Amino acid sequence: MTASAEAEDAGRLALGISYRGTAYHGWQSQPDGCTVQDHLERALGAFATVPVSTVCAGRTDTGVHGLNQVVHLDAPVARDPFSWVRGTNRFLPPDIAVEWCHPVAADFHARNHARGRRYRYLLREAPTRPSLEAGLVGWTFRPLDVDAMRAAAVHLIGEHDFTSFRAAACQAATPVKTLRRLDVRRQGSLWVFEFEASAFLHHMVRNILGCLVFVGSGRRPPAWMAEVLAARRREVAAPTFPADGLYFVGPVYDAALGLPQHTAAMDWLP
Amino acid sequence: MTASAEAEDAGRLALGISYRGTAYHGWQSQPDGCTVQDHLERALGAFATVPVSTVCAGRTDTGVHGLNQVVHLDAPVARDPFSWVRGTNRFLPPDIAVEWCHPVAADFHARNHARGRRYRYLLREAPTRPSLEAGLVGWTFRPLDVDAMRAAAVHLIGEHDFTSFRAAACQAATPVKTLRRLDVRRQGSLWVFEFEASAFLHHMVRNILGCLVFVGSGRRPPAWMAEVLAARRREVAAPTFPADGLYFVGPVYDAALGLPQHTAAMDWLP
Repeated sequence: MTASAEAEDAGRLALGISYRGTAYHGWQSQPDGCTVQDHLERALGAFATVPVSTVCAGRTDTGVHGLNQVVHLDAPVARDPFSWVRGTNRFLPPDIAVEWCHPVAADFHARNHARGRRYRYLLREAPTRPSLEAGLVGWTFRPLDVDAMRAAAVHLIGEHDFTSFRAAACQAATPVKTLRRLDVRRQGSLWVFEFEASAFLHHMVRNILGCLVFVGSGRRPPAWMAEVLAARRREVAAPTFPADGLYFVGPVYDAALGLPQHTAAMDWLP
Repeated sequence: MTASAEAEDAGRLALGISYRGTAYHGWQSQPDGCTVQDHLERALGAFATVPVSTVCAGRTDTGVHGLNQVVHLDAPVARDPFSWVRGTNRFLPPDIAVEWCHPVAADFHARNHARGRRYRYLLREAPTRPSLEAGLVGWTFRPLDVDAMRAAAVHLIGEHDFTSFRAAACQAATPVKTLRRLDVRRQGSLWVFEFEASAFLHHMVRNILGCLVFVGSGRRPPAWMAEVLAARRREVAAPTFPADGLYFVGPVYDAALGLPQHTAAMDWLP
């Protein structure tokens, strides 16, 4: 049996991946080999004993964490799903893990089939910087106003041209995206921002967050967010907020696919 | 004015410290200089421009985290309290921070005046190991039973000889301690164990946790905990659980002292 015939037999798999992004140069494979995808594909290859390539639902930047990143791959060998999980984890560094594995149809595509993506941002509002949670939360010493931030967020909900929140390096075909949800809540000194959109532009969450903090701290009124959006110019928005507190919660798929939307890593976070 | 006269003028201070213990050889100063105390005293000395020594409320082991460790020191220079916080944090690594500073009476002693200590243990119960939270939670793949663990915990509440849960290296004057609280709760796949005692023996929380997991996973009945306690022999208990999920929540002082019992780091944890 040839390798390609084997591949057809073993079928397509979806995997859920969690990771702490601090030590990695983002998701996407790079020549330096220091990305999450590089580590994942090396581990998959070590387990399968042949090279394995993956396609992810949403690329993340340097320092951004993953709670339920989803990839698909064509299995070069037939193994039961949990063997892929356990076997691959043996070859992964301690801050990356495969959380689950599900067989999917041969035409399943982790990126193209995602109907949306979710991100969360954790922000510490305190006079002092983080320590225990360094790299895992953003930080502001300015007190934030929840009503002002919620009023600003409303302007962004819906289908818009998000050019003002788009990094220069962004490769998206269009700046028009649909933001379905932008919730703001607090838990003691920690702010939790929940984002869901059809898709996100490069740095979009971190740029929106910078603007929300400008509004929350009183440096701009809530209506300023509408002006920033309408301007369609990056330079009118606030600076990009650090990656530290940013989590890719995961893609949203049709429930009929039966793919897990939850990982154990989520139970640990606010 | 001499340095000692200055010290008397500037008075005694209490500081609250938070840290991620992963990178450090525990709290207590060592010749290698790689402990939390070593880093703290170097940073205090850099801010004060003269050497500063500290006494802590509870020494922690390698890998154990601190949420509100308290130290006292005799200030060699007069600065307002928040200057000590901000100034010292500038010289500390990103995973250690001073959270607060309060002037205290000249006879305040961080260890001797503590009426109790609190610890928390976070344990992931899932088929797969942690990634995002590596070093910050313990892990078991065995499903745990809450009722069995609570029934076992009851046997430990009160004043007892805790020799069975004491590390060989323990330097405590007596193995008799009063365990005031041992609560068990779960949040999704995460278990949270809360301990409060007059004081703890070396490895006491981690040894009790090993036994609770034996009981929770059905390897021993709840009544076995009473047998282990009564035996007063370390070898009858379960193996010491890893430090990863262990947090020194902080000492308990008389409320009249007015020292903060809460730090922002606590808002981030379950």
